[in-house]
Amino acid sequence: MVGCMSKVAVILSGSGVFDGSELHETVITMLHLEKLGVKYQTFAPDTQQLHTIDHSTGEASEGRNVLVESNRVSRGTTQPLTELNHRDFDALIFVGGFGAAKNLSDFAVKGSEYSVIPSIGSVITEFNQNNKWILAMCIAPVLLAKVVSGSKLTIGSDSGTIEAMATTGVNHVTCSVVESCVDEENKLITTPAYMLASNLIELEEGISEALKLLSSKL
Amino acid sequence: MVGCMSKVAVILSGSGVFDGSELHETVITMLHLEKLGVKYQTFAPDTQQLHTIDHSTGEASEGRNVLVESNRVSRGTTQPLTELNHRDFDALIFVGGFGAAKNLSDFAVKGSEYSVIPSIGSVITEFNQNNKWILAMCIAPVLLAKVVSGSKLTIGSDSGTIEAMATTGVNHVTCSVVESCVDEENKLITTPAYMLASNLIELEEGISEALKLLSSKL
Repeated sequence: MVGCMSKVAVILSGSGVFDGSELHETVITMLHLEKLGVKYQTFAPDTQQLHTIDHSTGEASEGRNVLVESNRVSRGTTQPLTELNHRDFDALIFVGGFGAAKNLSDFAVKGSEYSVIPSIGSVITEFNQNNKWILAMCIAPVLLAKVVSGSKLTIGSDSGTIEAMATTGVNHVTCSVVESCVDEENKLITTPAYMLASNLIELEEGISEALKLLSSKL
Repeated sequence: MVGCMSKVAVILSGSGVFDGSELHETVITMLHLEKLGVKYQTFAPDTQQLHTIDHSTGEASEGRNVLVESNRVSRGTTQPLTELNHRDFDALIFVGGFGAAKNLSDFAVKGSEYSVIPSIGSVITEFNQNNKWILAMCIAPVLLAKVVSGSKLTIGSDSGTIEAMATTGVNHVTCSVVESCVDEENKLITTPAYMLASNLIELEEGISEALKLLSSKL
């Protein structure tokens, strides 16, 4: 099994669906990477979050630090993004949550005029130019749409998001929650996760299938 | 299937292993309740956390609110503990994380001289006196040891924790990570989870087996 010796970098963007990494997606990703025998290391940028959302009221207040908060879901093992060297890893994974659209890019604020933060843009470019696979779920494929020109990917079926991404020239493919979109040319795997999942069972099915696909490419 | 119509209350204590609910335990508990066809609702006390731990450095600072932070892992659906009425539920579940020992009790600070916060003590007593099953994992069984007199339970095999709990008169049973301790008389199910688990696969095996046991009792 080739996958047994593989190692992937997982990029986090905080801790909590409305201002950071989506926690169910993150835990299910970690669990299924272990089940597939794929080693992983999490990374996050050492920057302030756009803001902190009270997850009980939706109210926004002062920012927290993306790296500090990401360590909540990794139990203290997340490294600063500056430590990530593509040579140490076979693939790159982005979990979802609004953090991808608020902390790793400004998609949540600027929509079609969005940009990806430079440190994340560099990491995507490095993996892509070194022919390494990248998997992104939920809203995180917007990062790939911006950085990998001519990419084919899915964020599910949300027309507003698809329209806002269209300015990048991306080829969007509508997928159900349990499907993945594979761009063989650019080595991208994307799956809708909580852009479409209505419960944890669907979420696990979609993510585990996407990770199996990734594992089969390593 | 009796379990299909069952509903359980899950008590959270924040969001993050070192000052709140352990996130892997919480997500795996939710996932497997769904797989067992058991409905659930999460609750948390609307109080300040003991403190906030920087999960990258271990440094303690000002507290956050237990209810507000618990909503991060439940995606905004956690209710205040004061809304919990045992008549609406067939069983009670406590996930682990230091929050159980810092926010739901003062076990982390006072050790053998610990007490459980009154609102949590009342909930445990209500379910117990109404012959409803209670499941607790990781460090959370210390809550049951204090409130349910003469209880039989496990927190795994950590001698310091077992010794500190001994003042309650609890009957501690050593268990491996994939085992559960069942106290038929007091209707308690306990499992070590991250008191012993060294990875997510072991963690899922132990928690899913404990939840299956609980489901079979409902």
